[in-house]
Amino acid sequence: MIHDMRTVITGTGSFIPANKKLNKDFLQQEFFSDKQTRIPSEGADIIRKFEEVTGICERRYADEDMNASEMAVAAALVAIKDAGTDPETLDQIIVAHNFGNVLQGTIQSDAVPSLASRVKQALGIRNPACIPYDILFGCPGWVQGVIQADAFFKAGMARKALVIGTETLSRVIDQYDRDSMIFSDGAGAVVLEAVEGAADAPGVISTSVQSFTTDELNYINMGMSYAPNVDKRIRYIKMLGRKVYEFALKRVPEAMKDCLDKGHIPIGDVKKIFIHQANEKMDIAIIKAFYGLYDIREIPADIMPMNIHVLGNSSVATVPTLYDMVRRGDIPNQAVHPGDVILFASVGAGMNINAICYRV
Amino acid sequence: MIHDMRTVITGTGSFIPANKKLNKDFLQQEFFSDKQTRIPSEGADIIRKFEEVTGICERRYADEDMNASEMAVAAALVAIKDAGTDPETLDQIIVAHNFGNVLQGTIQSDAVPSLASRVKQALGIRNPACIPYDILFGCPGWVQGVIQADAFFKAGMARKALVIGTETLSRVIDQYDRDSMIFSDGAGAVVLEAVEGAADAPGVISTSVQSFTTDELNYINMGMSYAPNVDKRIRYIKMLGRKVYEFALKRVPEAMKDCLDKGHIPIGDVKKIFIHQANEKMDIAIIKAFYGLYDIREIPADIMPMNIHVLGNSSVATVPTLYDMVRRGDIPNQAVHPGDVILFASVGAGMNINAICYRV
Repeated sequence: MIHDMRTVITGTGSFIPANKKLNKDFLQQEFFSDKQTRIPSEGADIIRKFEEVTGICERRYADEDMNASEMAVAAALVAIKDAGTDPETLDQIIVAHNFGNVLQGTIQSDAVPSLASRVKQALGIRNPACIPYDILFGCPGWVQGVIQADAFFKAGMARKALVIGTETLSRVIDQYDRDSMIFSDGAGAVVLEAVEGAADAPGVISTSVQSFTTDELNYINMGMSYAPNVDKRIRYIKMLGRKVYEFALKRVPEAMKDCLDKGHIPIGDVKKIFIHQANEKMDIAIIKAFYGLYDIREIPADIMPMNIHVLGNSSVATVPTLYDMVRRGDIPNQAVHPGDVILFASVGAGMNINAICYRV
Repeated sequence: MIHDMRTVITGTGSFIPANKKLNKDFLQQEFFSDKQTRIPSEGADIIRKFEEVTGICERRYADEDMNASEMAVAAALVAIKDAGTDPETLDQIIVAHNFGNVLQGTIQSDAVPSLASRVKQALGIRNPACIPYDILFGCPGWVQGVIQADAFFKAGMARKALVIGTETLSRVIDQYDRDSMIFSDGAGAVVLEAVEGAADAPGVISTSVQSFTTDELNYINMGMSYAPNVDKRIRYIKMLGRKVYEFALKRVPEAMKDCLDKGHIPIGDVKKIFIHQANEKMDIAIIKAFYGLYDIREIPADIMPMNIHVLGNSSVATVPTLYDMVRRGDIPNQAVHPGDVILFASVGAGMNINAICYRV
């Protein structure tokens, strides 16, 4: 019976580029405001304030000759090995990104053929029934990819999927914008399988997705450099930071609660929350507001694993990378255990929000 | 019961840019081969040969200030009106494209926020449960979008979707490549609804999708200009024409037959075939090969409506635009009638192939 099918994560993997970019590497950088005026503070002051708000001390940039699709392959190989699955048996390869392959030193996005097709070739998969496609859904794209696979499983149209989030944000940032220090490169992947099981068996319990486009459409968009003398036709990733913060603080907790409500899961059952690594202060505020919806003032210890301090915000890659790291014991004092109920949640350009309640 | 749910097209629309680009407009254009050598033929000879093979006499280019997402909105408005549906009741907006918004005079793709989010805003939809996302699947992206919606309907995760294909190929072509004359701009859209119905009620009967990435991955890709003195870092849409032709001729008929087989539909029941408008000679050869799989030598008259002569190849937009035109009586001697079994089929970058068998 269809309601006994569960979408189960059977393997995880991530690719973290080796090149560390430290906060002090930005000490000599000139920064401008959105009004194109030079920010007069000392570099050290700018960086200290940045670190206080975002929690980011380091981020990673891909090698010059590595592209988003190649990072995706690296993450996928780990996830496939972890799942112990034969890649030829994959029904779908879903790659979430927003910029495609941006070759070092260029500004063009390249997504023809799709990144998913490139991943399929690199994995050596010959099966014509393995369908690769890309989805664009802002930073929540990887979470949405899992929801996509879940839909195909529920429809009986697929039983095994590889879902990847990959992005080289380092190639679309405006170096004159302080927000450029937020962004990072990386890729994360999972293998999902449709498994028959009882109501309390591992797998996706419930999902929630929301989209807000009325006033929110351009909270994250592509815009001109903040520096006055940069070519105005070149566009960079831009955020209305305050707007994003306020939006996320209101809407993400609602989506997380909606997801739990749909799954009839009491808040006390939630063991871990894997939230998009966008900004440490924002993520902490979101978690507080989420528990506040249940009138809980004390947040459970270690409920929210984080890696933003050393990995920054790699968009679609943050959530799967974080989950992979926790599963592998790569984050101190963090672990998941069979039977644990966990939440994935994300927010980003669109503006889009989504959450998945999952039993490990 | 789930097998009584049908995915029904309840409205169609298209947007055809007003600006005609005629074959004679290319008379003075210098063309180069993929070996970067000047093609020595007279312009008139090049164009005559081009027209003989592709069937293309005219194509359309979007206004300078119009982008893919705006064409998508124009097509969507017509489809929504045709369906007589309230846009606030849409559960999903799926936009298929490959290049996002490419502003006139630039080479960057802009898909942050996604084109689907922009469409949602432009349609004035406020419902947060209306989920907009983009898919990249080469030229077959719109057909794939319909299959996506069908999966969500079958999974019980959505009941009404707007599926759009939109592309401004005029902005990613290499003017020194004869293939540039193939490409066109446009957008097509449908409203899909989940409707309960009997086995012979209108709706999607069956679908088939295949992906070939081993040798085929780069048959359509992004490459350098054929002209020797163009910036080598700028990439343009490129096709290995002969490879694409041979591939499509073998694989598309197989997919079409697979689709009919899955639906238990005899070939004689097929009333119309709406095939991706890629190249007239290729499309005719595909149809002949398709009927050849059933040992039928005589192709039914008027089985394959075409608009490539005047609209060229607008990628993801060709199939929905063609279907919309036939429904509206805009193509001489072509019509669909309630109860007709029709086929949609497409092929493109990936390389991807798909087909949908549908009862009108």
